[in-house]
Amino acid sequence: MPPFEVTHTDGRARRGVLTTPHGRVQTPAFMPVGTAGSIKGVTPEQLRGTGTEIILANTYHLQLRPTAEVVHDLGGLHRFMGWDGPILTDSGGYQVFSLAGINRITDEGVTFRSHIDGSPMRLDPRIAIEIQNHLGADIIMAFDQCPPLPCDPGLLRLAVDRTIRWAAKCKEAHSRSDQAMFGIVQGGLDLDLRARCAKELVAIGFDGYAIGGLSVGESHREMIEVLTPVASNLPEDKPRYLMGVGLPRDILAAATAGIDLFDCVLPTRNGRNSWAFTSAGPLKMRNEKHRTDAQPLEKDCDCETCKRFSRGYIRHLFNAGEMLGPTLTSIHNLRFYQRFMSRIRDLISVGRLADIMVEFPIVGQSGRAGGAQRHLPGASGRSRPSTCPTEEPRWTG
Amino acid sequence: MPPFEVTHTDGRARRGVLTTPHGRVQTPAFMPVGTAGSIKGVTPEQLRGTGTEIILANTYHLQLRPTAEVVHDLGGLHRFMGWDGPILTDSGGYQVFSLAGINRITDEGVTFRSHIDGSPMRLDPRIAIEIQNHLGADIIMAFDQCPPLPCDPGLLRLAVDRTIRWAAKCKEAHSRSDQAMFGIVQGGLDLDLRARCAKELVAIGFDGYAIGGLSVGESHREMIEVLTPVASNLPEDKPRYLMGVGLPRDILAAATAGIDLFDCVLPTRNGRNSWAFTSAGPLKMRNEKHRTDAQPLEKDCDCETCKRFSRGYIRHLFNAGEMLGPTLTSIHNLRFYQRFMSRIRDLISVGRLADIMVEFPIVGQSGRAGGAQRHLPGASGRSRPSTCPTEEPRWTG
Repeated sequence: MPPFEVTHTDGRARRGVLTTPHGRVQTPAFMPVGTAGSIKGVTPEQLRGTGTEIILANTYHLQLRPTAEVVHDLGGLHRFMGWDGPILTDSGGYQVFSLAGINRITDEGVTFRSHIDGSPMRLDPRIAIEIQNHLGADIIMAFDQCPPLPCDPGLLRLAVDRTIRWAAKCKEAHSRSDQAMFGIVQGGLDLDLRARCAKELVAIGFDGYAIGGLSVGESHREMIEVLTPVASNLPEDKPRYLMGVGLPRDILAAATAGIDLFDCVLPTRNGRNSWAFTSAGPLKMRNEKHRTDAQPLEKDCDCETCKRFSRGYIRHLFNAGEMLGPTLTSIHNLRFYQRFMSRIRDLISVGRLADIMVEFPIVGQSGRAGGAQRHLPGASGRSRPSTCPTEEPRWTG
Repeated sequence: MPPFEVTHTDGRARRGVLTTPHGRVQTPAFMPVGTAGSIKGVTPEQLRGTGTEIILANTYHLQLRPTAEVVHDLGGLHRFMGWDGPILTDSGGYQVFSLAGINRITDEGVTFRSHIDGSPMRLDPRIAIEIQNHLGADIIMAFDQCPPLPCDPGLLRLAVDRTIRWAAKCKEAHSRSDQAMFGIVQGGLDLDLRARCAKELVAIGFDGYAIGGLSVGESHREMIEVLTPVASNLPEDKPRYLMGVGLPRDILAAATAGIDLFDCVLPTRNGRNSWAFTSAGPLKMRNEKHRTDAQPLEKDCDCETCKRFSRGYIRHLFNAGEMLGPTLTSIHNLRFYQRFMSRIRDLISVGRLADIMVEFPIVGQSGRAGGAQRHLPGASGRSRPSTCPTEEPRWTG
């Protein structure tokens, strides 16, 4: 069986299977984010129970603390985290560049200061791959330069040139044949730059291709308009991964454009902040109206939270500051995301992906409209250093 | 089968079975504390996995938030918490009196202010039982006056007189025959007062008897010297419960004196603060020495944490501020306590309780000695209002 196989298509959307040393992943797949080596508040066993098949961990955070060497000494990332399924590590590029102002970028690499203790650090293609070889994930990412949007055209071109050069160096530096390696397409909203970047990366040759530099400040519409042409520049027989995305509507739009992999902190970050995802839209669990509500978070949801606990209890947990509130809501949200992905896959199989709009009305919600949607966290669910004020927004309401 | 049956004895120590509407409890038993309606950081399923058969919830906290009415509307405490095993609720007496300075005590009852919003509240025998009838635990407690130690002899006598009068009123107010009710023996370190209190409570007649007013400031030796005579004043055929105790050595000493039930926040509170219990003594999991330690928290421990995770990983979780650190350490600590209780029961069965000193050297540790024991949290593991600074001591070390 090849490492990646497309088994069904529905328009540009595709269903497939990705095979890794730690097991198979059905795509389109959603990867929960274990920034610092744990999916916050959720044990690996609970995570399995949500239907999760693959997770993401952040190279930047793990290298700062406890360091890749320590993870390696403790048996590698799988044993360290107690997760025996597939893992993908990012390259640290996004985190370094989202700390703009405290780093220096040259054609060779990036120097920056740790957000934890200010100590000087360096990442370049060789170091980023060495760290990921040490961590030992199933899939590792090339080290790229991820500019914010909007971006000066000259800077954007410079970032793309660097990303291509660095990708070649990463491939050269990669020393473990058991780890797949993905290249990252940059180029902002400039379709010509994106096409050039994709072409050059394909010429270098990777096991899969990611689309980076989206979900970094652009509108939903802008993101979607880039996706279809960029995806069509990538090989049919390799997995395509849209980094850091996102809300259910973003995932649906991207899956429709032919994307296979996603990651986002929203299910757990919003869960910690008392937001429960449901197919009809989010619930704010601190709200008084849930006080004596004996219903589960979502009717017919099969998650461990909905099988046992009421909205009234979960509201109480948040109001009383009990850790179990974030845990139970994160479990539900992760299961919500995995149920959503599962339906996307099933509907692709039967050529009826558009039906998902009826089953999950939340995908029609803009996330920026009035009413209950007013405070919906945006699509930018990337993992930032935990001391940033944006890490734990208090979506009280 | 009677509600409580002693099946084995070893000196004064006894092994038995307590039968409740929600199942049987093997005694001596340890009850984890779910102050505000959750065992902090642990799901009911994880709790079951630790061998826990019965839990405690705090009337005071639940009445303040979300109120007994809301718990009742949501199906009662078992359904509310998602715990289908036996539950015991305390009467709120201890919490009210541990807020000394903000309450007024008369022969009729206590008025105080909520520690959450300062609103005026009242507890008296009738109200305390009404609330507990609403909450619906399997075992409820009479409303008592719990003085601190040391205590003025006149005040102590007054507290005992009130406790006896209130106990009679509680029995009168109790309206649910499916709930067992325990009286609480007060009297500080005064054995005559204790004996009188016990005699009067037995005359009133309860389903079990608790020893209150210990673990409130006295030394370990003082506590132990009171226990044996007090236990011997209580009926052989009813369960005896030592409230708010404690460290493993306190539990062992009390079980040796013939106590059957215990509760304490230490396994979870210390777990949240990175202290792991082991039979050889506690580990401080933030310590640098655990950095690359691939061992489990305790060799041969069968808990979910020890089966999967290393000391190095758990240290990392605490250092990175990950919620999973408190959760995993709490699970281990709860399992440690339940393994300890299980061994106590097994050794009583074979008349060799003293052997536990060899199997669990931690019981020989004073908790106040030098070295690794220096910061060991004291035996006073009672549940206080969560805004009190004593609730979450940072046992960093």
